[in-house]
Amino acid sequence: MTFKRRTHTCGELSETNIGEKIVLNGWVDTRRDLGGVIFIDLRDRYGITQVIFEPTYNEEMHKEGSKLRSEYVVAIEGTVRKRPADTENPNLPTGMIDVMVDKVILLNEAKTPPFPIKKSGDVNEDIRLEYRYLDLRGEKMQKNMLMRSKMYNSVRNFFNDQEFLEIETPYLMKSTPEGARDFLVPSRIHRGKFYALPQSPQTYKQLLMVSGFDKYFQIVKCFRDEDLRADRQPEFTQIDIEMSFVDQEDIFSLVEGLMVKLFKETKNQELETPIKRISFHEAMEKYGSDKPDLRFNMELKTLNHVFENTEFKVFKDAIDNNGIITGLLAEGCGDFTRNQLDVLTNYVKQLGAGGLIWMRVKEDGLEAPVAKFMSDEEKEGIIDSLSAKPGDLIFIISGPKMKSLSYMGSLRLEMARRLDLIKPDAKPSLLWVTNFPLLEWDEDTKRFYAMHHPFTSPNLDELDKLDNNPGDINARAYDLVLDGNEIAGGSIRIHDAELQSKMFDTLGISKEEADRKFGFLMNAFKYGAPPHGGIAFGFDRLAMLFAGEDSIRDVIAFPKTSSASSLMDDSPSNVDEDQLRELHIKVK
Amino acid sequence: MTFKRRTHTCGELSETNIGEKIVLNGWVDTRRDLGGVIFIDLRDRYGITQVIFEPTYNEEMHKEGSKLRSEYVVAIEGTVRKRPADTENPNLPTGMIDVMVDKVILLNEAKTPPFPIKKSGDVNEDIRLEYRYLDLRGEKMQKNMLMRSKMYNSVRNFFNDQEFLEIETPYLMKSTPEGARDFLVPSRIHRGKFYALPQSPQTYKQLLMVSGFDKYFQIVKCFRDEDLRADRQPEFTQIDIEMSFVDQEDIFSLVEGLMVKLFKETKNQELETPIKRISFHEAMEKYGSDKPDLRFNMELKTLNHVFENTEFKVFKDAIDNNGIITGLLAEGCGDFTRNQLDVLTNYVKQLGAGGLIWMRVKEDGLEAPVAKFMSDEEKEGIIDSLSAKPGDLIFIISGPKMKSLSYMGSLRLEMARRLDLIKPDAKPSLLWVTNFPLLEWDEDTKRFYAMHHPFTSPNLDELDKLDNNPGDINARAYDLVLDGNEIAGGSIRIHDAELQSKMFDTLGISKEEADRKFGFLMNAFKYGAPPHGGIAFGFDRLAMLFAGEDSIRDVIAFPKTSSASSLMDDSPSNVDEDQLRELHIKVK
Repeated sequence: MTFKRRTHTCGELSETNIGEKIVLNGWVDTRRDLGGVIFIDLRDRYGITQVIFEPTYNEEMHKEGSKLRSEYVVAIEGTVRKRPADTENPNLPTGMIDVMVDKVILLNEAKTPPFPIKKSGDVNEDIRLEYRYLDLRGEKMQKNMLMRSKMYNSVRNFFNDQEFLEIETPYLMKSTPEGARDFLVPSRIHRGKFYALPQSPQTYKQLLMVSGFDKYFQIVKCFRDEDLRADRQPEFTQIDIEMSFVDQEDIFSLVEGLMVKLFKETKNQELETPIKRISFHEAMEKYGSDKPDLRFNMELKTLNHVFENTEFKVFKDAIDNNGIITGLLAEGCGDFTRNQLDVLTNYVKQLGAGGLIWMRVKEDGLEAPVAKFMSDEEKEGIIDSLSAKPGDLIFIISGPKMKSLSYMGSLRLEMARRLDLIKPDAKPSLLWVTNFPLLEWDEDTKRFYAMHHPFTSPNLDELDKLDNNPGDINARAYDLVLDGNEIAGGSIRIHDAELQSKMFDTLGISKEEADRKFGFLMNAFKYGAPPHGGIAFGFDRLAMLFAGEDSIRDVIAFPKTSSASSLMDDSPSNVDEDQLRELHIKVK
Repeated sequence: MTFKRRTHTCGELSETNIGEKIVLNGWVDTRRDLGGVIFIDLRDRYGITQVIFEPTYNEEMHKEGSKLRSEYVVAIEGTVRKRPADTENPNLPTGMIDVMVDKVILLNEAKTPPFPIKKSGDVNEDIRLEYRYLDLRGEKMQKNMLMRSKMYNSVRNFFNDQEFLEIETPYLMKSTPEGARDFLVPSRIHRGKFYALPQSPQTYKQLLMVSGFDKYFQIVKCFRDEDLRADRQPEFTQIDIEMSFVDQEDIFSLVEGLMVKLFKETKNQELETPIKRISFHEAMEKYGSDKPDLRFNMELKTLNHVFENTEFKVFKDAIDNNGIITGLLAEGCGDFTRNQLDVLTNYVKQLGAGGLIWMRVKEDGLEAPVAKFMSDEEKEGIIDSLSAKPGDLIFIISGPKMKSLSYMGSLRLEMARRLDLIKPDAKPSLLWVTNFPLLEWDEDTKRFYAMHHPFTSPNLDELDKLDNNPGDINARAYDLVLDGNEIAGGSIRIHDAELQSKMFDTLGISKEEADRKFGFLMNAFKYGAPPHGGIAFGFDRLAMLFAGEDSIRDVIAFPKTSSASSLMDDSPSNVDEDQLRELHIKVK
């Protein structure tokens, strides 16, 4: 078929074009037949233009126009006209004109879509994913993909302007699972051997620092074979950054520059810097989270000092076992019903908490089931510590420190939702969380795991604890948090072969295993490795937050479901036996 | 360790900095001890600065300096000084100054590298790949990676300026091998099912056109599990482009704009456009190649008309079997020795040719072993057709058309190498090759294969041949050739479900198989698919040509060997049995 290629997009024509002969290519968005005149809203990704088939203007084309249906693809040749008085649409950029059709060529027909293109956002997600190509035609996904494309551009321009090198790292690499599961790729040439898809380009970017590239970035796909949650995908996109001869401050100021640019260019918001900082321990104690949402104020208060000499067994146990008693004030919530309080109690219990203590603040003191176990002094202490006033509600959770804080942190968020504390126009709340513990103890496997990854440098003035008290060491690690979401995480790395080897030892990784998995990196460190560090952004989550969406699937063109399937093409799928035979594997 | 972060890079200081206190961070490139004064060339990716440890200037630091060795990493605090008269180095941007060392901090030691960093290019490639992090430290790889990084930037800016959307397509997709082998990824969640890594994002980018995105680009990794040649890698990078509402001319003018920008920004060369075009058939007849190198002139001449009535059986057979007699003139090569001619004969025989006919042009006619089989008229015809002069040499190959042309095309390139016809300063030679055959017949499997891929549109005025004579149809396909290398290939696509279905039929793909593999695409075509087309560049090869390298491994940070291994980290490798068990597979 031959057709004229567009002279303009459907978002482009205005009064300055009146009288011009133009060509548009696009989709029939809507078609109305009013008194024998056919009005078509012609759509492309740039906008909508009204085109008119009028029998008195062109009888033959009016007949052609009457055959058009929603989502048909057409080329329209026509003449731009000022819209008749009172028919202008000031809400549409092209709303002052319309196009009188001189010729229409049908480029493709369309079956009736399984859901209305305009409102695809309201449709069941499985259907949207099965017909993803139609879902992507809708306004929401068009807007999100356009925004995401602009974000790539802003990010890359930022790093290019600062003389960063973009370097691609391999997708077929060595399997070195430590933490998450690898996706494996069987080798055809080497029977019984496998590649892994990268969980991150971590080792490669560190090697690039050894190579002297000094400032590296890449926007890169990473892969983790985990059971999925709403904001996870088996493949995800990372903005990956590494620098040599830097410390934490250099990374912070770089990233703050990037965030200023991204907020400006993507959302036209001015971001204030420097970004606030908080240590991991302070974040846990004040907000019960290592990614606190600071768009609202509620703070947890540690009440251990109030109960130093308590007779109340629950609290006494907590204190005796190095645990915590943490309180949260819900201002003006003293009138919560017993039912409401039961719901909240169940909420924290489902998370794993043993229970939730609540107290209503009255003019004459505290009213609560547990009040009888406390001295007047202790009640005073609670009220003072939380600056509680009559009419307020107090929550207390006690027990093992990190867990209790975390339950209370969740309750803090739940209260914010119930009280609508986060305003739709709240300023974005960015926060650095610093000084993470280097290690986490795992009760099941009775070993330490690296809280970030095994290449993270311990604080250098705490190295002496590595032998006797490694669980107490803090790391030179940091996360960037946006509105309660971790959007980036990084660290200053170990660049000393000996310290790296000691780190593997602390993690219970044998010398033989460390050699087999990471020998190349430790070798590289022996040939002149510079001090270095970096950070990686979860790009999908960042895009999701910028787009104001709740699911990362809404900012990914072709996402997988939570069972890691593509509903559109039905993958993963069976493959031919021949393919497996060539790869020397069989299904069992 | 604490150290001062650099105030300047090692390529930055000049006479304007004289007297300043500065800090440099970098690697000891060389160390010389001259009369008690230590001179160190300090290196980073920006350049080299000479730093001086002089005992009379600072005795303590002179002692420290004497401990430094090649590739040690140091932080230097010092004072910029004008170099003493006659010690300036005009070849070095920093050659007018040096730095008197006030303090040196050793950041890391270095073992002696297995090869000299500066000359890593001369070292056996296996050693270079094993110690890739050191190879990358050398000048050649630093330069190549910097150039490649700039190329990404030029490409992306070009497309962003033209309102293209960058959209990421999945890496875990459906296996639909057609042509090359897929890399497979076993699914843990879906027992016995597999993802494939993309050989190209072809179907996804076509779906994006159905979605209305209209201008898409992506720089993306692709994967083919093939036996490797020098310029192939199991994973390779593609510049992937697709547009709606376009024909071939739009793609050509877009790509020509991109090439002008790339040549300008990467090599500071002005490229003349429009780029020449040649049809596939003309390219084969004139140059014996579908990717002719036009940096030199030699043209093949078809001699069939000379031998229409020949008695020479070899030529008669060729003509009778619809074959070809093709000739090539090697000017001034009439003095090639018998031995040289034997070598060339063996050269084409190794390619598969039955033989090579050669003829020396003398004042009194042709001198050749086969001359006796030809009439005087035929000899005249050869001389005329090739415009041969005394002192020239003529080659003739006859047989099946495409094969014979291809042998002669290889001989043409071989002669160019032997005669040094391609000058080092030759202008870049770009060429569009158009009108490829739609299909290739495969004698082994007795079926047609798509010459590009099954989504390529046939020429629309040849559709009637699909039923009876599909082998004769030309495709709306095109390749871009640079200096005899295919750097990009693309086509206008089929956008009609019915035609696509017919195409699968022609390729011997059953309706059931087509449905199973590509049903989602054919479905999508039913909901309003616009006319669309695109192209994809082999980015690695393009970077290789721009860098003037012979191997794509020299423009890839961490390449695989020809047996698809990484010598640095020894991948692919064995994995834990647990990993395989979770994936429901076993090695057999």
